[in-house]
Amino acid sequence: MSPDDADPDSEPAADRRGFLRRAAAVAATSVAVPVLADPRDALEPWRTQPGRSFSTYGQPAAAEIAVQRWPSPNPAAPGNGASWSPLHQLEGSLTPAGLHFERHHNGIPDIDPARHELRIFGRVRHALAYTLDDLLRYPRITRRCFIECGGNSNTGWRDKPAQGTAGHLHGLVSCSEWTGIPLAALLAEVEPQAAAAWIIAEGADAFSLTMSIPLAKAREDCLLVLFQNGERLRPEQGYPLRLLVPGWEGVLNVKWLTNVQISDQPAMARNETSKYTELLPDGSARAFTFVMEPKSLITMPSAGSRLPGPGWYEIAGLAWSGYGAVSRVEVSVDGGDTWAAAVLEPPVLAQAWTRFRYGWQWTGAEAVLQSRVTDTSGRVQPSRSALLASRGRSAYFHYHAIVSWAVAADGAVSHVYVDATSPRNELDELLMDRAWD
Amino acid sequence: MSPDDADPDSEPAADRRGFLRRAAAVAATSVAVPVLADPRDALEPWRTQPGRSFSTYGQPAAAEIAVQRWPSPNPAAPGNGASWSPLHQLEGSLTPAGLHFERHHNGIPDIDPARHELRIFGRVRHALAYTLDDLLRYPRITRRCFIECGGNSNTGWRDKPAQGTAGHLHGLVSCSEWTGIPLAALLAEVEPQAAAAWIIAEGADAFSLTMSIPLAKAREDCLLVLFQNGERLRPEQGYPLRLLVPGWEGVLNVKWLTNVQISDQPAMARNETSKYTELLPDGSARAFTFVMEPKSLITMPSAGSRLPGPGWYEIAGLAWSGYGAVSRVEVSVDGGDTWAAAVLEPPVLAQAWTRFRYGWQWTGAEAVLQSRVTDTSGRVQPSRSALLASRGRSAYFHYHAIVSWAVAADGAVSHVYVDATSPRNELDELLMDRAWD
Repeated sequence: MSPDDADPDSEPAADRRGFLRRAAAVAATSVAVPVLADPRDALEPWRTQPGRSFSTYGQPAAAEIAVQRWPSPNPAAPGNGASWSPLHQLEGSLTPAGLHFERHHNGIPDIDPARHELRIFGRVRHALAYTLDDLLRYPRITRRCFIECGGNSNTGWRDKPAQGTAGHLHGLVSCSEWTGIPLAALLAEVEPQAAAAWIIAEGADAFSLTMSIPLAKAREDCLLVLFQNGERLRPEQGYPLRLLVPGWEGVLNVKWLTNVQISDQPAMARNETSKYTELLPDGSARAFTFVMEPKSLITMPSAGSRLPGPGWYEIAGLAWSGYGAVSRVEVSVDGGDTWAAAVLEPPVLAQAWTRFRYGWQWTGAEAVLQSRVTDTSGRVQPSRSALLASRGRSAYFHYHAIVSWAVAADGAVSHVYVDATSPRNELDELLMDRAWD
Repeated sequence: MSPDDADPDSEPAADRRGFLRRAAAVAATSVAVPVLADPRDALEPWRTQPGRSFSTYGQPAAAEIAVQRWPSPNPAAPGNGASWSPLHQLEGSLTPAGLHFERHHNGIPDIDPARHELRIFGRVRHALAYTLDDLLRYPRITRRCFIECGGNSNTGWRDKPAQGTAGHLHGLVSCSEWTGIPLAALLAEVEPQAAAAWIIAEGADAFSLTMSIPLAKAREDCLLVLFQNGERLRPEQGYPLRLLVPGWEGVLNVKWLTNVQISDQPAMARNETSKYTELLPDGSARAFTFVMEPKSLITMPSAGSRLPGPGWYEIAGLAWSGYGAVSRVEVSVDGGDTWAAAVLEPPVLAQAWTRFRYGWQWTGAEAVLQSRVTDTSGRVQPSRSALLASRGRSAYFHYHAIVSWAVAADGAVSHVYVDATSPRNELDELLMDRAWD
């Protein structure tokens, strides 16, 4: 965050200088054509008759129909699986609610908000139940926060680079402004006992997703979310109530939240034992791997697109970390031989997406584009080989290595690996690819 | 903005202290009920069968159907008029695109983006035309900005307080994150001549809305907007291209932008002569009243709602100013006799909405709730009598006085005037109420 941001009146000078430099670069390669006739004589058909009237709730333009989530449901149980956010078609650092990624285990329940309750019980002095009307009386805060599925980007563990757009490969992450009640406020009411150390959150869907979260985190910054991007939660985001666990694995952000049991130990539920645990090279297993690690990704250009020809391009992408805010993003256009600082666009907030931008003059030669984030905790996004060396070849979750997009001489962009790696365990390979697992 | 905001890792301490104070207050009046049976035995019907599957573009919950824009079209020409944003039902400081207010003069054109052009011509060295593909090559920036119709809140000029919700009375304002190309970048390409002093922006709708803006403002911060809240513009917000004129009258933010003529003088078009001009008490007329003045509004509670009974409430609302950022919001619960500082929720940005919050213990006695904003330019939102004294009784635009909500002993909230005013000119009264004028 530049020092200028502290004064809301001042312009973000660093970003402005960066912008003018980039604008000057594009001017040198402008593709605009001269205006010949009087432009006011050019009346397109939509200017010769009245247009559509008002609507009570707006929708995207018909011409933008291709900007969609990409559902990948389990064919045998269509309510289990995920839909991926089209990161490569979006801008800024917020996801519209309609395009926020989805991950469900047994479909989206059609909850009657008048009958929904939040119950907090277990190792407490006062077990209490709250209706929605009750909850809407409590003071609220709004904060911007990403949510990322722990299994996002997991085709990266494969031996060969998967081909797909940025959204198809990495779209199980989104960022919204969430409004809700700090869980700490209700915990203060129920008064956890001295032995209390965990909360066990349960959703009111037909899967009864159940996840354990340390009580300290619940008190620190978890939020009982009622609104997303200004309006009430969408059904697929947990309407009428979801948990926000800032910076931690998406699965912990329990949707359709109904039960919060206070306990002295975790539930050891399916998604914290048979899933979300990983065998390491030394034979030990990682469990309760809560925090989402620093990650960045170039979204424009990205795999599946084609640059129309040599000239000036703005490389843009997203960076985030569960450990804090983004402190730096570097971009390489030569496969990691050299790096240069990208411009970070404000706001730069903890546990939120930061948009980065970098001007690039493409000569028409082959190139490999990469980005690398450093967060405020000092953690740096690893190379793919470094990640594989530390996590081994049995991993499924938490893939967060540097992503490489190759630009061919004809402008075609594809996904590549640039560093050598050992082959993956064959059995593990068979288990990949199932987002609904 | 609190000093803590400069460090993205730190918590906003002032806000946190404020929150804990408010949470403690509500705990003293908690409405929750004890949990008796084992809550995990309570299986609602939506938990006993699989839910709905994934969707390519999400929609609000069916139970939230009442959260809508309120269209007020001209019955004789349904594409002329406005739709109002339901401010009283929304949270945070961003408007979802589907609920952003609308103001059209001849409906929403159904534009084919492949055939849409932006042309910049007139007093320039190089008149140039840009396709959408051209424009998408330029570097972009994202900024949060409110847009407010100059005629918003204009029932405030009436002799008697109009009754309606906050959205019905004040909903011609919204706030989004806009992504686009600084107009300065393209102005640098066309090279305005020395005599150039104005830009004349024209929309590609069937009304050909035409508005004049000083060239200095165009160079300073105007944006050619392609994206709203992360996705491409909605049709009713100007798809595929609109102008953003930060902090200035909504009508200047020309939608469906197609022509930008560079001129040595303004166009003196309909909406800068017969409209958007106002007779003052001294006989002179205000014209080109560009900047939207500091304004604030309590949205929760607000007129048309009813407090269920005495107890703790969080008063929340929105504040903004075209002159800069919000520096202070004060709240009064006694009709303006005493004022106290509200908590400002970050981010606090220039020309953007700031959400404010204030804890209130309602005893059950009659009360009048008000908010008053001061902006970073030092301007203070005026009382209604002060505004009328300076602007007279022939005004139609730029109503931005303090708003008063009366709470009756039975909890019913209504709109009231608390300061004495002179009666309005009878002829003017006849001309009110037409948002489509």
